[in-house]
Amino acid sequence: MPSSGFRTSYRVVWADTDAAQVVHYANYFRIFERAEEEFYRHLGFSFTEWSSRGLWFPRVEAFCRYKKPAKFNELLQIEVAVRDLKEKSVKLEFRVLSEKSDTVFASGYIIAVAADKKTGKATAIPVEILEKLRPLSE
Amino acid sequence: MPSSGFRTSYRVVWADTDAAQVVHYANYFRIFERAEEEFYRHLGFSFTEWSSRGLWFPRVEAFCRYKKPAKFNELLQIEVAVRDLKEKSVKLEFRVLSEKSDTVFASGYIIAVAADKKTGKATAIPVEILEKLRPLSE
Amino acid sequence: MPSSGFRTSYRVVWADTDAAQVVHYANYFRIFERAEEEFYRHLGFSFTEWSSRGLWFPRVEAFCRYKKPAKFNELLQIEVAVRDLKEKSVKLEFRVLSEKSDTVFASGYIIAVAADKKTGKATAIPVEILEKLRPLSE
Amino acid sequence: MPSSGFRTSYRVVWADTDAAQVVHYANYFRIFERAEEEFYRHLGFSFTEWSSRGLWFPRVEAFCRYKKPAKFNELLQIEVAVRDLKEKSVKLEFRVLSEKSDTVFASGYIIAVAADKKTGKATAIPVEILEKLRPLSE
Repeated sequence: MPSSGFRTSYRVVWADTDAAQVVHYANYFRIFERAEEEFYRHLGFSFTEWSSRGLWFPRVEAFCRYKKPAKFNELLQIEVAVRDLKEKSVKLEFRVLSEKSDTVFASGYIIAVAADKKTGKATAIPVEILEKLRPLSE
Repeated sequence: MPSSGFRTSYRVVWADTDAAQVVHYANYFRIFERAEEEFYRHLGFSFTEWSSRGLWFPRVEAFCRYKKPAKFNELLQIEVAVRDLKEKSVKLEFRVLSEKSDTVFASGYIIAVAADKKTGKATAIPVEILEKLRPLSE
Repeated sequence: MPSSGFRTSYRVVWADTDAAQVVHYANYFRIFERAEEEFYRHLGFSFTEWSSRGLWFPRVEAFCRYKKPAKFNELLQIEVAVRDLKEKSVKLEFRVLSEKSDTVFASGYIIAVAADKKTGKATAIPVEILEKLRPLSE
Repeated sequence: MPSSGFRTSYRVVWADTDAAQVVHYANYFRIFERAEEEFYRHLGFSFTEWSSRGLWFPRVEAFCRYKKPAKFNELLQIEVAVRDLKEKSVKLEFRVLSEKSDTVFASGYIIAVAADKKTGKATAIPVEILEKLRPLSE
Protein backbone atom coordinates (compact mmCIF):
# COMPACT_ATOMS: atom_id res chain seq x y z
CA MET A 1 0.00 0.00 0.00
CA PRO A 2 1.47 3.35 -1.04
CA SER A 3 0.61 6.08 1.39
CA SER A 4 -0.27 9.74 1.80
CA GLY A 5 2.80 9.95 3.95
CA PHE A 6 0.53 10.48 6.94
CA ARG A 7 1.00 8.15 9.87
CA THR A 8 -0.29 8.35 13.41
CA SER A 9 0.02 6.15 16.47
CA TYR A 10 -2.48 4.76 18.94
CA ARG A 11 -1.95 2.93 22.23
CA VAL A 12 -4.33 -0.02 22.72
CA VAL A 13 -6.28 0.49 25.96
CA TRP A 14 -7.94 -2.16 28.11
CA ALA A 15 -11.39 -1.07 26.91
CA ASP A 16 -10.42 -1.95 23.31
CA THR A 17 -9.90 -5.62 24.15
CA ASP A 18 -12.38 -8.48 24.38
CA ALA A 19 -12.44 -11.85 26.14
CA ALA A 20 -10.09 -13.31 23.49
CA GLN A 21 -7.55 -10.87 25.01
CA VAL A 22 -7.10 -9.04 21.73
CA VAL A 23 -8.52 -5.85 20.21
CA HIS A 24 -12.21 -6.44 19.43
CA TYR A 25 -12.76 -6.63 15.67
CA ALA A 26 -15.22 -3.71 15.60
CA ASN A 27 -12.72 -1.46 17.34
CA TYR A 28 -10.45 -1.39 14.29
CA PHE A 29 -13.12 0.79 12.68
CA ARG A 30 -12.80 3.20 15.61
CA ILE A 31 -9.04 3.13 15.11
CA PHE A 32 -9.50 3.85 11.38
CA GLU A 33 -11.80 6.76 12.13
CA ARG A 34 -9.48 8.20 14.76
CA ALA A 35 -6.66 8.12 12.17
CA GLU A 36 -8.99 9.74 9.63
CA GLU A 37 -9.81 12.53 12.10
CA GLU A 38 -6.12 13.14 12.79
CA PHE A 39 -5.36 13.06 9.09
CA TYR A 40 -7.92 15.81 8.39
CA ARG A 41 -6.76 17.79 11.41
CA HIS A 42 -3.21 17.49 10.04
CA LEU A 43 -4.48 18.88 6.71
CA GLY A 44 -5.96 21.80 8.59
CA PHE A 45 -9.65 21.05 9.03
CA SER A 46 -11.77 19.02 11.37
CA PHE A 47 -15.18 17.37 11.25
CA THR A 48 -16.31 20.30 13.41
CA GLU A 49 -15.78 22.62 10.47
CA TRP A 50 -17.61 20.31 8.09
CA SER A 51 -20.47 20.46 10.49
CA SER A 52 -20.47 24.25 10.73
CA ARG A 53 -20.76 24.37 6.90
CA GLY A 54 -23.89 22.25 7.13
CA LEU A 55 -22.14 19.08 5.96
CA TRP A 56 -21.75 15.56 7.32
CA PHE A 57 -19.26 13.04 6.10
CA PRO A 58 -21.08 9.71 6.47
CA ARG A 59 -19.50 6.40 5.58
CA VAL A 60 -21.02 4.41 2.72
CA GLU A 61 -18.68 1.42 2.96
CA ALA A 62 -16.24 0.04 5.48
CA PHE A 63 -13.95 -2.97 5.24
CA CYS A 64 -11.26 -4.58 7.35
CA ARG A 65 -9.00 -7.58 6.83
CA TYR A 66 -7.58 -8.96 10.10
CA LYS A 67 -4.10 -10.43 9.86
CA LYS A 68 -2.75 -10.78 13.38
CA PRO A 69 -4.45 -9.90 16.66
CA ALA A 70 -3.20 -6.78 18.46
CA LYS A 71 -3.10 -6.90 22.25
CA PHE A 72 -3.45 -4.57 25.21
CA ASN A 73 -0.76 -1.89 25.54
CA GLU A 74 0.50 -2.32 21.96
CA LEU A 75 1.58 0.98 20.41
CA LEU A 76 -0.04 0.80 16.98
CA GLN A 77 1.09 2.74 13.92
CA ILE A 78 -1.68 3.66 11.47
CA GLU A 79 -0.91 4.65 7.86
CA VAL A 80 -3.46 6.54 5.81
CA ALA A 81 -3.71 6.53 2.00
CA VAL A 82 -6.09 8.58 -0.18
CA ARG A 83 -7.76 6.63 -3.01
CA ASP A 84 -10.59 7.15 -5.43
CA LEU A 85 -10.97 10.84 -4.77
CA LYS A 86 -14.19 11.91 -6.48
CA GLU A 87 -16.29 15.06 -6.52
CA LYS A 88 -18.52 13.86 -3.68
CA SER A 89 -16.68 10.96 -2.09
CA VAL A 90 -13.28 9.68 -1.07
CA LYS A 91 -11.85 6.30 -0.12
CA LEU A 92 -9.29 6.26 2.66
CA GLU A 93 -7.18 3.16 3.14
CA PHE A 94 -5.62 2.27 6.47
CA ARG A 95 -2.88 -0.07 7.57
CA VAL A 96 -2.43 -0.89 11.25
CA LEU A 97 1.14 -1.86 12.11
CA SER A 98 3.19 -2.68 15.18
CA GLU A 99 5.42 -0.05 16.77
CA LYS A 100 8.42 -1.20 14.73
CA SER A 101 6.26 -1.62 11.61
CA ASP A 102 7.36 -5.25 11.29
CA THR A 103 3.88 -6.69 11.84
CA VAL A 104 0.66 -5.81 10.02
CA PHE A 105 -2.30 -6.30 12.35
CA ALA A 106 -5.02 -5.20 9.96
CA SER A 107 -5.74 -3.22 6.83
CA GLY A 108 -8.94 -1.80 5.43
CA TYR A 109 -10.75 1.19 4.13
CA ILE A 110 -13.73 3.45 4.48
CA ILE A 111 -15.55 5.30 1.71
CA ALA A 112 -17.09 8.53 2.93
CA VAL A 113 -19.36 10.89 1.06
CA ALA A 114 -20.02 14.57 1.68
CA ALA A 115 -23.68 15.08 2.55
CA ASP A 116 -25.95 18.00 3.22
CA LYS A 117 -27.03 17.81 6.87
CA LYS A 118 -30.55 19.03 6.13
CA THR A 119 -31.44 17.02 3.05
CA GLY A 120 -29.11 14.06 3.62
CA LYS A 121 -28.22 14.20 -0.11
CA ALA A 122 -24.70 13.72 -1.39
CA THR A 123 -23.02 16.98 -2.23
CA ALA A 124 -19.64 18.20 -3.49
CA ILE A 125 -16.65 17.98 -1.16
CA PRO A 126 -15.63 21.60 -0.40
CA VAL A 127 -12.96 22.84 -2.83
CA GLU A 128 -10.32 23.60 -0.15
CA ILE A 129 -10.52 20.01 1.08
CA LEU A 130 -10.39 18.58 -2.45
CA GLU A 131 -7.33 20.68 -3.19
CA LYS A 132 -5.50 19.33 -0.16
CA LEU A 133 -6.49 15.73 -0.84
CA ARG A 134 -5.71 15.71 -4.58
CA PRO A 135 -1.88 15.79 -4.36
CA LEU A 136 -2.02 12.97 -1.78
CA SER A 137 -4.37 10.85 -3.86
CA GLU A 138 -3.08 7.79 -5.73
CA MET B 1 -33.08 -2.35 47.37
CA PRO B 2 -36.84 -1.97 47.01
CA SER B 3 -37.88 -1.61 43.43
CA SER B 4 -40.23 0.09 40.99
CA GLY B 5 -41.32 -3.41 40.08
CA PHE B 6 -39.65 -2.90 36.72
CA ARG B 7 -37.13 -5.47 35.66
CA THR B 8 -35.56 -6.13 32.28
CA SER B 9 -33.00 -8.60 30.99
CA TYR B 10 -29.85 -8.25 28.90
CA ARG B 11 -27.64 -10.88 27.33
CA VAL B 12 -23.91 -10.14 27.66
CA VAL B 13 -22.35 -10.02 24.18
CA TRP B 14 -18.72 -10.59 23.25
CA ALA B 15 -18.21 -6.87 22.63
CA ASP B 16 -19.09 -6.14 26.30
CA THR B 17 -16.14 -8.15 27.59
CA ASP B 18 -12.50 -7.18 28.09
CA ALA B 19 -9.22 -9.05 28.33
CA ALA B 20 -10.06 -10.09 31.93
CA GLN B 21 -12.83 -12.14 30.24
CA VAL B 22 -15.53 -10.28 32.13
CA VAL B 23 -17.85 -7.37 31.32
CA HIS B 24 -15.74 -4.19 31.14
CA TYR B 25 -16.48 -1.93 34.11
CA ALA B 26 -17.61 1.03 31.97
CA ASN B 27 -20.15 -1.16 30.19
CA TYR B 28 -22.29 -1.45 33.34
CA PHE B 29 -23.18 2.18 32.73
CA ARG B 30 -24.39 1.24 29.26
CA ILE B 31 -26.40 -1.57 30.84
CA PHE B 32 -27.88 0.89 33.37
CA GLU B 33 -28.82 3.30 30.60
CA ARG B 34 -30.37 0.57 28.47
CA ALA B 35 -32.52 -0.44 31.47
CA GLU B 36 -33.42 3.22 32.00
CA GLU B 37 -34.50 3.53 28.35
CA GLU B 38 -36.64 0.40 28.61
CA PHE B 39 -38.11 1.62 31.89
CA TYR B 40 -39.24 4.89 30.31
CA ARG B 41 -40.51 3.08 27.23
CA HIS B 42 -42.47 0.79 29.57
CA LEU B 43 -43.97 3.92 31.19
CA GLY B 44 -45.00 5.10 27.75
CA PHE B 45 -42.41 7.63 26.63
CA SER B 46 -38.97 7.53 25.11
CA PHE B 47 -35.97 9.82 24.98
CA THR B 48 -37.10 10.58 21.42
CA GLU B 49 -40.15 12.35 22.83
CA TRP B 50 -38.09 14.28 25.34
CA SER B 51 -36.03 15.47 22.46
CA SER B 52 -39.01 16.53 20.37
CA ARG B 53 -40.13 18.70 23.33
CA GLY B 54 -36.77 20.46 23.27
CA LEU B 55 -35.46 18.60 26.32
CA TRP B 56 -32.40 16.50 27.07
CA PHE B 57 -31.99 14.30 30.08
CA PRO B 58 -28.26 14.54 30.89
CA ARG B 59 -26.65 12.65 33.75
CA VAL B 60 -25.15 14.68 36.60
CA GLU B 61 -23.86 11.73 38.62
CA ALA B 62 -23.21 8.06 37.99
CA PHE B 63 -22.01 5.39 40.40
CA CYS B 64 -21.42 1.64 40.30
CA ARG B 65 -20.31 -0.88 42.92
CA TYR B 66 -18.92 -4.08 41.39
CA LYS B 67 -19.55 -7.24 43.36
CA LYS B 68 -18.89 -10.18 41.10
CA PRO B 69 -17.74 -10.17 37.48
CA ALA B 70 -20.32 -11.08 34.83
CA LYS B 71 -19.13 -13.11 31.85
CA PHE B 72 -19.93 -13.54 28.19
CA ASN B 73 -23.33 -15.02 27.41
CA GLU B 74 -24.72 -14.41 30.90
CA LEU B 75 -28.41 -13.45 30.84
CA LEU B 76 -28.49 -10.50 33.23
CA GLN B 77 -31.56 -9.27 35.09
CA ILE B 78 -31.66 -5.54 35.77
CA GLU B 79 -33.95 -4.05 38.44
CA VAL B 80 -34.80 -0.35 38.39
CA ALA B 81 -35.82 1.73 41.42
CA VAL B 82 -36.94 5.39 41.43
CA ARG B 83 -35.41 7.53 44.19
CA ASP B 84 -35.14 11.19 45.05
CA LEU B 85 -37.71 12.34 42.55
CA LYS B 86 -37.49 16.13 42.42
CA GLU B 87 -38.97 18.82 40.24
CA LYS B 88 -36.01 18.85 37.86
CA SER B 89 -34.11 15.63 38.57
CA VAL B 90 -34.48 11.98 39.41
CA LYS B 91 -32.19 9.29 40.77
CA LEU B 92 -32.59 5.82 39.31
CA GLU B 93 -31.02 2.90 41.11
CA PHE B 94 -30.07 -0.29 39.33
CA ARG B 95 -29.23 -3.80 40.44
CA VAL B 96 -27.68 -6.26 37.98
CA LEU B 97 -28.43 -9.88 38.87
CA SER B 98 -27.86 -13.31 37.40
CA GLU B 99 -30.63 -15.08 35.48
CA LYS B 100 -31.87 -16.85 38.62
CA SER B 101 -31.36 -13.69 40.72
CA ASP B 102 -29.09 -15.57 43.12
CA THR B 103 -26.01 -13.48 42.33
CA VAL B 104 -25.64 -9.70 42.38
CA PHE B 105 -23.04 -8.61 39.83
CA ALA B 106 -23.28 -4.89 40.40
CA SER B 107 -25.47 -2.13 41.72
CA GLY B 108 -25.42 1.60 41.20
CA TYR B 109 -27.34 4.66 40.19
CA ILE B 110 -27.53 7.61 37.87
CA ILE B 111 -28.94 11.05 38.66
CA ALA B 112 -30.41 12.71 35.58
CA VAL B 113 -31.73 16.22 35.23
CA ALA B 114 -34.19 17.60 32.70
CA ALA B 115 -32.48 20.29 30.62
CA ASP B 116 -33.49 22.70 27.91
CA LYS B 117 -31.69 21.71 24.71
CA LYS B 118 -31.12 25.31 23.63
CA THR B 119 -29.98 26.92 26.86
CA GLY B 120 -28.59 23.82 28.59
CA LYS B 121 -30.29 25.00 31.81
CA ALA B 122 -32.07 22.63 34.18
CA THR B 123 -35.82 22.72 33.73
CA ALA B 124 -38.88 21.02 35.20
CA ILE B 125 -39.51 17.38 34.32
CA PRO B 126 -42.72 17.32 32.23
CA VAL B 127 -45.81 16.77 34.40
CA GLU B 128 -46.94 13.55 32.65
CA ILE B 129 -43.57 11.98 33.37
CA LEU B 130 -43.55 13.15 36.99
CA GLU B 131 -47.01 11.71 37.47
CA LYS B 132 -45.93 8.32 36.24
CA LEU B 133 -42.74 8.30 38.29
CA ARG B 134 -44.26 9.51 41.58
CA PRO B 135 -46.17 6.35 42.53
CA LEU B 136 -43.05 4.28 41.80
CA SER B 137 -40.79 6.55 43.83
CA GLU B 138 -39.52 5.48 47.26
CA MET C 1 -30.06 -11.72 -0.14
CA PRO C 2 -31.51 -15.16 0.51
CA SER C 3 -31.43 -16.09 4.15
CA SER C 4 -30.92 -18.87 6.68
CA GLY C 5 -34.40 -18.07 7.83
CA PHE C 6 -32.89 -16.73 11.03
CA ARG C 7 -33.83 -13.23 12.03
CA THR C 8 -33.40 -11.39 15.27
CA SER C 9 -34.21 -7.90 16.48
CA TYR C 10 -32.25 -5.21 18.27
CA ARG C 11 -33.36 -1.92 19.80
CA VAL C 12 -30.95 0.97 19.12
CA VAL C 13 -29.82 2.44 22.46
CA TRP C 14 -28.51 5.94 23.12
CA ALA C 15 -24.96 4.62 23.50
CA ASP C 16 -25.04 3.32 19.90
CA THR C 17 -25.49 6.80 18.47
CA ASP C 18 -22.94 9.49 17.63
CA ALA C 19 -23.03 13.25 17.22
CA ALA C 20 -24.63 12.87 13.77
CA GLN C 21 -27.62 11.49 15.76
CA VAL C 22 -27.44 8.15 14.00
CA VAL C 23 -25.93 4.75 14.84
CA HIS C 24 -22.13 5.07 14.72
CA TYR C 25 -20.74 3.19 11.72
CA ALA C 26 -18.53 0.89 13.80
CA ASN C 27 -21.51 -0.21 15.88
CA TYR C 28 -23.03 -2.08 12.94
CA PHE C 29 -20.22 -4.59 13.44
CA ARG C 30 -21.36 -5.03 17.04
CA ILE C 31 -24.90 -5.50 15.76
CA PHE C 32 -23.68 -8.10 13.25
CA GLU C 33 -21.79 -9.97 15.97
CA ARG C 34 -24.73 -9.90 18.35
CA ALA C 35 -26.89 -11.43 15.59
CA GLU C 36 -24.17 -14.02 14.95
CA GLU C 37 -24.12 -14.92 18.64
CA GLU C 38 -27.90 -15.31 18.71
CA PHE C 39 -27.81 -17.33 15.50
CA TYR C 40 -25.36 -19.83 17.02
CA ARG C 41 -27.31 -19.89 20.28
CA HIS C 42 -30.42 -20.64 18.20
CA LEU C 43 -28.54 -23.54 16.58
CA GLY C 44 -27.72 -24.83 20.02
CA PHE C 45 -24.19 -23.71 20.81
CA SER C 46 -22.51 -20.60 22.06
CA PHE C 47 -19.05 -19.06 21.80
CA THR C 48 -18.61 -20.25 25.41
CA GLU C 49 -18.65 -23.83 24.18
CA TRP C 50 -16.19 -23.06 21.42
CA SER C 51 -13.93 -21.70 24.07
CA SER C 52 -14.24 -24.72 26.34
CA ARG C 53 -13.11 -26.90 23.38
CA GLY C 54 -9.98 -24.79 23.09
CA LEU C 55 -11.21 -22.90 20.02
CA TRP C 56 -11.66 -19.26 19.11
CA PHE C 57 -13.62 -17.98 16.18
CA PRO C 58 -11.71 -14.88 15.08
CA ARG C 59 -12.83 -12.72 12.20
CA VAL C 60 -10.58 -12.53 9.14
CA GLU C 61 -12.70 -10.06 7.17
CA ALA C 62 -15.54 -7.70 7.91
CA PHE C 63 -17.51 -5.48 5.55
CA CYS C 64 -20.48 -3.17 5.78
CA ARG C 65 -22.37 -1.08 3.22
CA TYR C 66 -24.37 1.75 4.77
CA LYS C 67 -27.60 2.62 3.00
CA LYS C 68 -29.68 4.74 5.36
CA PRO C 69 -28.83 5.91 8.85
CA ALA C 70 -30.65 4.22 11.75
CA LYS C 71 -31.60 6.37 14.71
CA PHE C 72 -32.06 6.06 18.45
CA ASN C 73 -34.93 3.83 19.57
CA GLU C 74 -35.33 2.16 16.17
CA LEU C 75 -36.26 -1.53 16.48
CA LEU C 76 -33.91 -3.14 13.97
CA GLN C 77 -34.45 -6.49 12.30
CA ILE C 78 -31.29 -8.43 11.45
CA GLU C 79 -31.30 -11.27 8.92
CA VAL C 80 -28.48 -13.80 8.86
CA ALA C 81 -27.39 -15.85 5.84
CA VAL C 82 -24.73 -18.60 5.73
CA ARG C 83 -22.35 -18.40 2.76
CA ASP C 84 -19.09 -19.98 1.72
CA LEU C 85 -19.11 -22.68 4.35
CA LYS C 86 -15.68 -24.28 4.28
CA GLU C 87 -13.85 -26.78 6.45
CA LYS C 88 -12.22 -24.07 8.56
CA SER C 89 -14.17 -20.91 7.85
CA VAL C 90 -17.61 -19.52 7.23
CA LYS C 91 -18.99 -16.28 5.82
CA LEU C 92 -22.09 -14.89 7.47
CA GLU C 93 -24.04 -12.20 5.69
CA PHE C 94 -26.24 -9.73 7.55
CA ARG C 95 -28.98 -7.36 6.54
CA VAL C 96 -30.20 -4.71 8.97
CA LEU C 97 -33.79 -3.65 8.32
CA SER C 98 -36.41 -1.43 9.90
CA GLU C 99 -39.11 -2.91 12.13
CA LYS C 100 -41.50 -3.28 9.17
CA SER C 101 -38.68 -4.47 6.90
CA ASP C 102 -39.43 -1.68 4.41
CA THR C 103 -36.06 0.05 4.86
CA VAL C 104 -32.59 -1.46 4.58
CA PHE C 105 -30.19 0.41 6.87
CA ALA C 106 -27.09 -1.63 6.15
CA SER C 107 -25.83 -4.95 4.87
CA GLY C 108 -22.52 -6.67 5.22
CA TYR C 109 -20.65 -9.78 6.21
CA ILE C 110 -17.99 -11.26 8.40
CA ILE C 111 -15.71 -14.18 7.57
CA ALA C 112 -14.73 -16.12 10.68
CA VAL C 113 -12.26 -18.96 10.96
CA ALA C 114 -12.01 -21.65 13.62
CA ALA C 115 -8.68 -21.33 15.41
CA ASP C 116 -6.82 -23.26 18.07
CA LYS C 117 -6.57 -21.02 21.15
CA LYS C 118 -3.06 -22.19 22.00
CA THR C 119 -1.38 -22.12 18.61
CA GLY C 120 -3.59 -19.50 16.93
CA LYS C 121 -3.62 -21.72 13.82
CA ALA C 122 -6.73 -22.27 11.72
CA THR C 123 -8.38 -25.58 12.47
CA ALA C 124 -11.46 -27.52 11.35
CA ILE C 125 -14.88 -26.25 12.44
CA PRO C 126 -16.30 -28.93 14.81
CA VAL C 127 -18.43 -31.48 12.92
CA GLU C 128 -21.64 -30.83 14.91
CA ILE C 129 -21.47 -27.15 13.99
CA LEU C 130 -20.72 -27.89 10.33
CA GLU C 131 -23.68 -30.26 10.19
CA LYS C 132 -26.04 -27.61 11.49
CA LEU C 133 -24.69 -24.91 9.20
CA ARG C 134 -24.62 -26.97 6.00
CA PRO C 135 -28.37 -27.18 5.35
CA LEU C 136 -28.63 -23.42 5.92
CA SER C 137 -25.76 -22.62 3.60
CA GLU C 138 -26.35 -21.16 0.16
CA MET D 1 -8.40 18.30 44.19
CA PRO D 2 -4.68 18.07 44.95
CA SER D 3 -2.90 15.89 42.48
CA SER D 4 -0.18 13.32 41.97
CA GLY D 5 1.33 15.80 39.57
CA PHE D 6 0.45 13.43 36.75
CA ARG D 7 -1.60 14.81 33.92
CA THR D 8 -2.33 13.41 30.49
CA SER D 9 -4.36 14.59 27.53
CA TYR D 10 -6.98 12.95 25.34
CA ARG D 11 -8.61 14.14 22.12
CA VAL D 12 -12.36 13.44 21.95
CA VAL D 13 -13.10 11.33 18.87
CA TRP D 14 -16.38 11.06 16.99
CA ALA D 15 -16.99 7.58 18.42
CA ASP D 16 -17.00 9.02 21.97
CA THR D 17 -20.02 11.20 21.25
CA ASP D 18 -23.72 10.41 21.37
CA ALA D 19 -26.84 11.90 19.81
CA ALA D 20 -26.77 14.77 22.32
CA GLN D 21 -23.55 15.77 20.46
CA VAL D 22 -21.47 15.42 23.61
CA VAL D 23 -19.25 12.71 25.08
CA HIS D 24 -21.47 9.81 26.20
CA TYR D 25 -21.56 9.60 30.00
CA ALA D 26 -20.19 6.04 30.14
CA ASN D 27 -17.17 7.07 28.07
CA TYR D 28 -15.78 9.17 30.93
CA PHE D 29 -15.02 5.87 32.63
CA ARG D 30 -13.00 4.85 29.58
CA ILE D 31 -11.21 8.18 29.77
CA PHE D 32 -10.50 7.63 33.48
CA GLU D 33 -9.12 4.16 32.78
CA ARG D 34 -6.96 5.37 29.91
CA ALA D 35 -5.48 8.01 32.27
CA GLU D 36 -4.95 5.30 34.91
CA GLU D 37 -3.11 3.14 32.36
CA GLU D 38 -0.88 6.03 31.35
CA PHE D 39 -0.27 6.91 34.99
CA TYR D 40 0.97 3.39 35.76
CA ARG D 41 3.00 3.32 32.54
CA HIS D 42 4.54 6.63 33.64
CA LEU D 43 5.44 5.01 36.99
CA GLY D 44 7.13 2.23 35.10
CA PHE D 45 4.71 -0.68 34.97
CA SER D 46 1.72 -1.65 32.91
CA PHE D 47 -1.33 -3.85 33.41
CA THR D 48 0.50 -6.35 31.21
CA GLU D 49 3.03 -6.86 33.99
CA TRP D 50 0.32 -7.23 36.60
CA SER D 51 -1.11 -9.93 34.45
CA SER D 52 2.19 -11.77 34.03
CA ARG D 53 2.45 -11.90 37.86
CA GLY D 54 -0.93 -13.62 38.01
CA LEU D 55 -2.75 -10.50 39.18
CA TRP D 56 -5.75 -8.53 37.96
CA PHE D 57 -6.69 -5.08 39.09
CA PRO D 58 -10.50 -5.10 39.04
CA ARG D 59 -12.58 -2.08 39.97
CA VAL D 60 -14.81 -2.32 43.03
CA GLU D 61 -16.32 1.16 42.75
CA ALA D 62 -16.57 3.84 40.10
CA PHE D 63 -18.09 7.30 40.30
CA CYS D 64 -18.38 10.33 38.06
CA ARG D 65 -19.89 13.79 38.52
CA TYR D 66 -20.68 15.53 35.23
CA LYS D 67 -20.29 19.29 35.24
CA LYS D 68 -20.24 20.47 31.66
CA PRO D 69 -20.55 18.40 28.48
CA ALA D 70 -17.39 17.89 26.42
CA LYS D 71 -17.74 17.88 22.65
CA PHE D 72 -16.11 16.30 19.64
CA ASN D 73 -12.53 17.34 18.95
CA GLU D 74 -12.01 18.83 22.43
CA LEU D 75 -8.48 18.24 23.74
CA LEU D 76 -9.12 17.09 27.29
CA GLN D 77 -6.64 17.30 30.15
CA ILE D 78 -6.94 14.56 32.76
CA GLU D 79 -5.42 14.92 36.24
CA VAL D 80 -4.82 11.87 38.41
CA ALA D 81 -4.64 11.86 42.23
CA VAL D 82 -3.79 8.88 44.49
CA ARG D 83 -6.06 8.51 47.53
CA ASP D 84 -6.75 5.88 50.16
CA LEU D 85 -3.77 3.73 49.36
CA LYS D 86 -4.21 0.49 51.28
CA GLU D 87 -2.46 -2.86 51.32
CA LYS D 88 -4.80 -4.36 48.74
CA SER D 89 -6.60 -1.43 47.14
CA VAL D 90 -6.18 2.10 45.91
CA LYS D 91 -8.53 4.94 45.03
CA LEU D 92 -7.59 7.06 42.03
CA GLU D 93 -9.33 10.39 41.54
CA PHE D 94 -9.63 12.02 38.14
CA ARG D 95 -10.46 15.48 36.93
CA VAL D 96 -11.26 16.10 33.26
CA LEU D 97 -10.48 19.65 32.17
CA SER D 98 -10.48 21.68 28.98
CA GLU D 99 -7.26 22.29 27.06
CA LYS D 100 -6.64 25.57 28.91
CA SER D 101 -7.80 24.04 32.23
CA ASP D 102 -10.42 26.77 32.61
CA THR D 103 -13.38 24.37 32.43
CA VAL D 104 -13.99 21.23 34.48
CA PHE D 105 -16.02 18.75 32.42
CA ALA D 106 -16.17 15.97 34.97
CA SER D 107 -14.52 14.53 38.05
CA GLY D 108 -14.69 11.14 39.65
CA TYR D 109 -12.83 8.14 40.94
CA ILE D 110 -12.31 4.44 40.72
CA ILE D 111 -11.35 2.10 43.56
CA ALA D 112 -9.34 -0.87 42.30
CA VAL D 113 -8.22 -3.90 44.23
CA ALA D 114 -5.34 -6.27 43.49
CA ALA D 115 -6.72 -9.76 42.89
CA ASP D 116 -5.29 -13.19 42.26
CA LYS D 117 -6.27 -14.22 38.73
CA LYS D 118 -6.82 -17.84 39.70
CA THR D 119 -8.77 -17.52 42.93
CA GLY D 120 -10.29 -14.08 42.31
CA LYS D 121 -9.44 -13.19 45.94
CA ALA D 122 -8.08 -9.80 46.97
CA THR D 123 -4.34 -9.87 47.50
CA ALA D 124 -1.57 -7.43 48.42
CA ILE D 125 -0.52 -4.83 45.87
CA PRO D 126 3.08 -5.71 44.86
CA VAL D 127 5.63 -3.86 47.00
CA GLU D 128 7.34 -2.04 44.09
CA ILE D 129 4.02 -0.56 43.06
CA LEU D 130 3.10 0.43 46.62
CA GLU D 131 6.46 2.12 47.00
CA LYS D 132 5.91 4.21 43.92
CA LEU D 133 2.35 5.13 44.84
CA ARG D 134 3.00 6.01 48.50
CA PRO D 135 4.88 9.31 47.96
CA LEU D 136 2.13 10.42 45.55
CA SER D 137 -0.67 9.48 47.91
CA GLU D 138 -2.57 12.17 49.82
